[in-house]
Amino acid sequence: MKLVSFEFQNRSSYGVVVDHVVKDLESMKSKLGQDLQQVLLNGNLTKIEQLDLSNMPEIELDEIRYLPVIASPNKTLCIGINYATHVKETGRDMPVYPMIFTRFADTQVAHEQAIIRPTISHKLDFEGELAVVIGKTARHVAAKDALDYVAGYSCYNDGSVRDWQKHTIQFVPGKNFPSTGGFGPFLVTTSDIPDPQKLHLTTRLNGEVMQDTDTDDMIFSVEKLIEYCSTFTELAPGDVIVSGTTGGVGAFRQPPVWMKPGDVVEVEISEIGILRNTIVDEEQK
Amino acid sequence: MKLVSFEFQNRSSYGVVVDHVVKDLESMKSKLGQDLQQVLLNGNLTKIEQLDLSNMPEIELDEIRYLPVIASPNKTLCIGINYATHVKETGRDMPVYPMIFTRFADTQVAHEQAIIRPTISHKLDFEGELAVVIGKTARHVAAKDALDYVAGYSCYNDGSVRDWQKHTIQFVPGKNFPSTGGFGPFLVTTSDIPDPQKLHLTTRLNGEVMQDTDTDDMIFSVEKLIEYCSTFTELAPGDVIVSGTTGGVGAFRQPPVWMKPGDVVEVEISEIGILRNTIVDEEQK
Repeated sequence: MKLVSFEFQNRSSYGVVVDHVVKDLESMKSKLGQDLQQVLLNGNLTKIEQLDLSNMPEIELDEIRYLPVIASPNKTLCIGINYATHVKETGRDMPVYPMIFTRFADTQVAHEQAIIRPTISHKLDFEGELAVVIGKTARHVAAKDALDYVAGYSCYNDGSVRDWQKHTIQFVPGKNFPSTGGFGPFLVTTSDIPDPQKLHLTTRLNGEVMQDTDTDDMIFSVEKLIEYCSTFTELAPGDVIVSGTTGGVGAFRQPPVWMKPGDVVEVEISEIGILRNTIVDEEQK
Repeated sequence: MKLVSFEFQNRSSYGVVVDHVVKDLESMKSKLGQDLQQVLLNGNLTKIEQLDLSNMPEIELDEIRYLPVIASPNKTLCIGINYATHVKETGRDMPVYPMIFTRFADTQVAHEQAIIRPTISHKLDFEGELAVVIGKTARHVAAKDALDYVAGYSCYNDGSVRDWQKHTIQFVPGKNFPSTGGFGPFLVTTSDIPDPQKLHLTTRLNGEVMQDTDTDDMIFSVEKLIEYCSTFTELAPGDVIVSGTTGGVGAFRQPPVWMKPGDVVEVEISEIGILRNTIVDEEQK
């Protein structure tokens, strides 16, 4: 099942994507939850899967304004270096543990919303990643059970301001400029993606392929990431694990490639779809 | 003015501390905000400062159950290495930029609540710190104006699980075990603390002084921290900057000192008070 959070005619809603239309679940909000995050918190994902959608109002997909899949995750945990190819590119040793940093919710933008290049730095880079949306409260979960705690998957562009990321060894500043993280377009549930390590991920900048990988190149699988993260923190429905990027980022190219206003960046993942964002400059005050 | 968030007779409230009593503002919640975070978001701190407290109900301080000063900060930004003495202790170079990592709100515990030692690691360390609570939305704020954006100050114990902090170069896992960060007891507003660099901070473990510093030993002042952080993220009322620790932490002692069940750890800051927590083991499932 493919879910989408959206605005239409000045109201926000969510629905199920079937071909090129959204089956709008506006009328079900009071029963299911006010947004997808609430649906997950209320444990109502399976109720949506069991709905008879034939009577739901339809909206053409190209008429909606996309919202981030989860409006405001309480926790967004990002994985730093998680593809064997990317590890080679950065010249680092193969990691023993996942590298974890965080993004605040206000860094998110939806599919087709603008990614903002800050005034203070133009070293804005892309990182195409698989986002894992948690569906059940998870603490001390073993890897073998971990996929039971997943609601679904989406595309993420972990937009990074590289000089601010490298000011110190902690990545947080460069990963938390407002409106730098693309998240969408859809939440595809585990019924459609039983194995997250069998996906193909491509990042394109202005149509040119910059990153291209199978998710089985991940060093720490989604299962392992949930096990590790749920050991030090409790994961709740709607929390997001952004599972790391592969080789090909702009910073390691010769010469480096930075995203600039007007650029179009796309993260495509098989079974999910294409997350597309255009770069704009921060407004001057 | 000294504010406190608390529970009393199974309701949560907040109030003004005068000598050994709390002037309970329960009756003002609908006007001011449901908790201190809402008071700040509503811009109502000055209204409390102008209140006639003489008619407010009084509760003895030793009858309340303390709550974290801010129940659930949207952003808690922690500074890694920020005292000249601590930099020498760790053998690092003097930093050019503040080192920023984050804590989730569920790592917080209040004054006199238990700090939990996780089962998975017993390398639980203390870090006594000055917490800065933001009072006004802040983005692109210059250092010279930064203190205008502060609501007040509190004590923080940035409890750290050292081996998990060092799994990779990113500190997040070791800084985010649930119930490891003491926060309290009071929020002392800027009217009582016009200069945060003129405070004295002491950390004691079972009565023994482990850390002892003046806040003018900070490498990046509170003003500079707000300038830096507000450049890459928008700070909102109720957000917290935990301004870093000084020398004397347990990890760098010979032999190392780890906090264990029954230990009592105190962070005392002049003009604010004493944050006291007892260590307990994580419950087994």
